[in-house]
Amino acid sequence: MKSSSKVYLNQQFLPKEKAFISPEDRGFYFADGVYEVIKYYKGYPFCFDAHMTRLRNSLAGVRISFNRFDELADICDRLIEENRLISEYAGVYIQVTRGVAARTHSFPSNDVTPTLYIRAFPMPTFLSEMRNGVRVISRDDIRWLRCNIKSIALLPNTLIFQEAMEAGAFECLLIRDGKFTEATHSNIMMVRNGMVFTHPDSNLILPGITRTKVIKLCSALSVGVIEKPVKADDINSIEECFITGTGSEIIPVVMVDNTVIGNGKPGPVTRMIQKAFFKITYEELAGEKITVNND
Amino acid sequence: MKSSSKVYLNQQFLPKEKAFISPEDRGFYFADGVYEVIKYYKGYPFCFDAHMTRLRNSLAGVRISFNRFDELADICDRLIEENRLISEYAGVYIQVTRGVAARTHSFPSNDVTPTLYIRAFPMPTFLSEMRNGVRVISRDDIRWLRCNIKSIALLPNTLIFQEAMEAGAFECLLIRDGKFTEATHSNIMMVRNGMVFTHPDSNLILPGITRTKVIKLCSALSVGVIEKPVKADDINSIEECFITGTGSEIIPVVMVDNTVIGNGKPGPVTRMIQKAFFKITYEELAGEKITVNND
Repeated sequence: MKSSSKVYLNQQFLPKEKAFISPEDRGFYFADGVYEVIKYYKGYPFCFDAHMTRLRNSLAGVRISFNRFDELADICDRLIEENRLISEYAGVYIQVTRGVAARTHSFPSNDVTPTLYIRAFPMPTFLSEMRNGVRVISRDDIRWLRCNIKSIALLPNTLIFQEAMEAGAFECLLIRDGKFTEATHSNIMMVRNGMVFTHPDSNLILPGITRTKVIKLCSALSVGVIEKPVKADDINSIEECFITGTGSEIIPVVMVDNTVIGNGKPGPVTRMIQKAFFKITYEELAGEKITVNND
Repeated sequence: MKSSSKVYLNQQFLPKEKAFISPEDRGFYFADGVYEVIKYYKGYPFCFDAHMTRLRNSLAGVRISFNRFDELADICDRLIEENRLISEYAGVYIQVTRGVAARTHSFPSNDVTPTLYIRAFPMPTFLSEMRNGVRVISRDDIRWLRCNIKSIALLPNTLIFQEAMEAGAFECLLIRDGKFTEATHSNIMMVRNGMVFTHPDSNLILPGITRTKVIKLCSALSVGVIEKPVKADDINSIEECFITGTGSEIIPVVMVDNTVIGNGKPGPVTRMIQKAFFKITYEELAGEKITVNND
């Protein structure tokens, strides 16, 4: 018998079907909220504190006063347990909005309590994609100029990602002013002259937690990192490309639009970084060995 | 005895307190929806068809298939009636989202029904502001590059409008690449050499319905209109300024940041346009005479 999945809303654990919000929630009227997604490796969250720090930064960025940080780890753990995800690869989604108030663009009074919504769900590993690499498309980056805030105003991301899906691609790289920024829900890394290029932290990209981890792993592996955007016109000079993210982890990109990257197979720098990443996630947290080399 | 206000959600008229949506609504997860606000002048909507056309365009812009247009006028009328707003100045808010679906950035399958949420509310006239003019601030336009779509991804608008409120200002003019685009929830018109300048229709502004009406009224009044953005640096050469919108109607702007516009009082072109606008709204629809000249 399949039991209904449980979610957390405001102060309660509820069957998903019984969780409801008001249409006057500012998350529904104005996209006035932020979120996080954390991956749990058989019950163990990866970089939980970094996600909390980013959540704090996003909330500060949109000026939402939220003071329930101390409760979040326990709520997430309980959702992982109650949804029988403790032996699985799972995601926990946390959304905080400014709360329910009569619709005016300006903030409601301070006594409005932010809405807190948390859910857990299976997050299977993209094993085949991580092994074989994926094809992506590219589009203009039409998003707002505060992409460092992980806001729920994701309409542009969904519209562009849908185009990727329809093109049979795995993701879509975004280009602003002729330079790659990031993808619709992952960061971009490109290898040139054996070094990893990625867009610097700025208002144009999300400060990815996997991205930060990869930059650290590169140092440990003596791979140079250059935080500088790659020009879209320079795509032909790219030796390797991969995207990073909580869900994507490290997925090689072997084709961008009609351009084959390198020899069309995941390259050696990507493989080295993948292996180092799997060590600190699957191996160290979940006790499982992931292999990506097919040969 | 005050009765609870009624709203419409999906297929039902409900007391506001009994209207609930799922947190899995894509409007709540992704700001994946669009909206309209229509002003009712004592029961008579202004430019209802134009709002419907814009709603169609917004829905097409975000690729939401919605086929209930024929029902909307009746639902709006009934909400005006049931909320006892038939003899008032009222607004009707219509929001359509892509519907409820498990969270993935790509669109859900075609059998997901869009969420339809409609409510009516008192929309008092900004009489004092329309008579005396208002002060506004200006900020960088940080919004996405599809501002012609009236989407619910309004987080940037709310953040910037809040700054205006905190500065004691009525609105905030937005500046992109050194040029005024529009305001957080109204269009901008500026008078120079007796002619009305306004940003041309493009992806950078909402095609305002009041804006369109004003452009037509200008022709009738033999006032030249130039659809060309005004440079922020040219603010000192502006003779008059006003904002337009369904709620704002036509409100003179007498100060932008620290710059006094004209002689600090609503100017003659603005007054002439206001009067022509009041004639086709308050007078013709509601049978009420609005005066704006104090002297």
